[in-house]
Amino acid sequence: MSYKVVFHIDWDDDKILNMALGNIENLIKDPSATDSEIHLVSNGNSVRLFRTEFCEENISRIRSLHSNGVRFCLCSNSLIKLHFKRENMIEICEVVPAGIIELCKLQAAGCAYIKP
Amino acid sequence: MSYKVVFHIDWDDDKILNMALGNIENLIKDPSATDSEIHLVSNGNSVRLFRTEFCEENISRIRSLHSNGVRFCLCSNSLIKLHFKRENMIEICEVVPAGIIELCKLQAAGCAYIKP
Amino acid sequence: MSYKVVFHIDWDDDKILNMALGNIENLIKDPSATDSEIHLVSNGNSVRLFRTEFCEENISRIRSLHSNGVRFCLCSNSLIKLHFKRENMIEICEVVPAGIIELCKLQAAGCAYIKP
Repeated sequence: MSYKVVFHIDWDDDKILNMALGNIENLIKDPSATDSEIHLVSNGNSVRLFRTEFCEENISRIRSLHSNGVRFCLCSNSLIKLHFKRENMIEICEVVPAGIIELCKLQAAGCAYIKP
Repeated sequence: MSYKVVFHIDWDDDKILNMALGNIENLIKDPSATDSEIHLVSNGNSVRLFRTEFCEENISRIRSLHSNGVRFCLCSNSLIKLHFKRENMIEICEVVPAGIIELCKLQAAGCAYIKP
Repeated sequence: MSYKVVFHIDWDDDKILNMALGNIENLIKDPSATDSEIHLVSNGNSVRLFRTEFCEENISRIRSLHSNGVRFCLCSNSLIKLHFKRENMIEICEVVPAGIIELCKLQAAGCAYIKP
């Protein structure tokens, strides 16, 4: 089967990002979940976790998941509020105009919602 | 486009309410989100955050969002458990019999769920 | 009316489990919610809360809810990672291969999602 799912993180908490990445890694390697559509939307202070300077280990996990088709979306509203520049964020991340609207759109398109 | 969404808060944590109100303020002022249907359901100890004595600044934000069509629902089960009276809660809030049932109904009616 | 809903917990936090159990207890005794379909999915470190040695009071609440038709699902990935054996978990719990996939399936089947 293939699943459609969006993971949502908003707090600047490394433990929550680790939980989300572990959830997605398990989902991807599950033989029953081929061709799944997996998104992660980060808004609020959680965008801080996606700075290139932040954490080498997380960056390699995120790049690896992205190469397996996972989409990482950062909220532009949050980046602006925190004065973070696009070029300081992990390059594979997509900047979306508004994280909340992305979450609404994805659920309306049939994605399950999971908040780690 | 117009979106349908319910925000859920349950912990007595001012930071979470601030996150939710900020999320809704961003959504309302987004030019792509006209005529959206926006609900917030508060149950558990989070109903404490909606007392009139609690916080002037939040009250004015909540009133302003309500005047823009946002519905604020407080769980009656939680109010009873905490011995809070209707007249001590912000007047624009709607008291629903059960917050969890409201969340079920709204999602069944097509609302996206967001837990800040 | 009857509702379809899945509650999700993932942190090893007794307060969150208490909130979830209270939510479900209120839902079950609500006269408007007959014949509801209620699931709880536990993954991550939250599976620790379902060990038989953990907490007498919670075990009796969980058994009582189960006898009222509530399904409690523990993530096998999480049990393996934490070296917990099936026989040390509350006997009424069902072990599912992957908690995240269970959450995807249940939402795809029309369950509302609630994260206490």
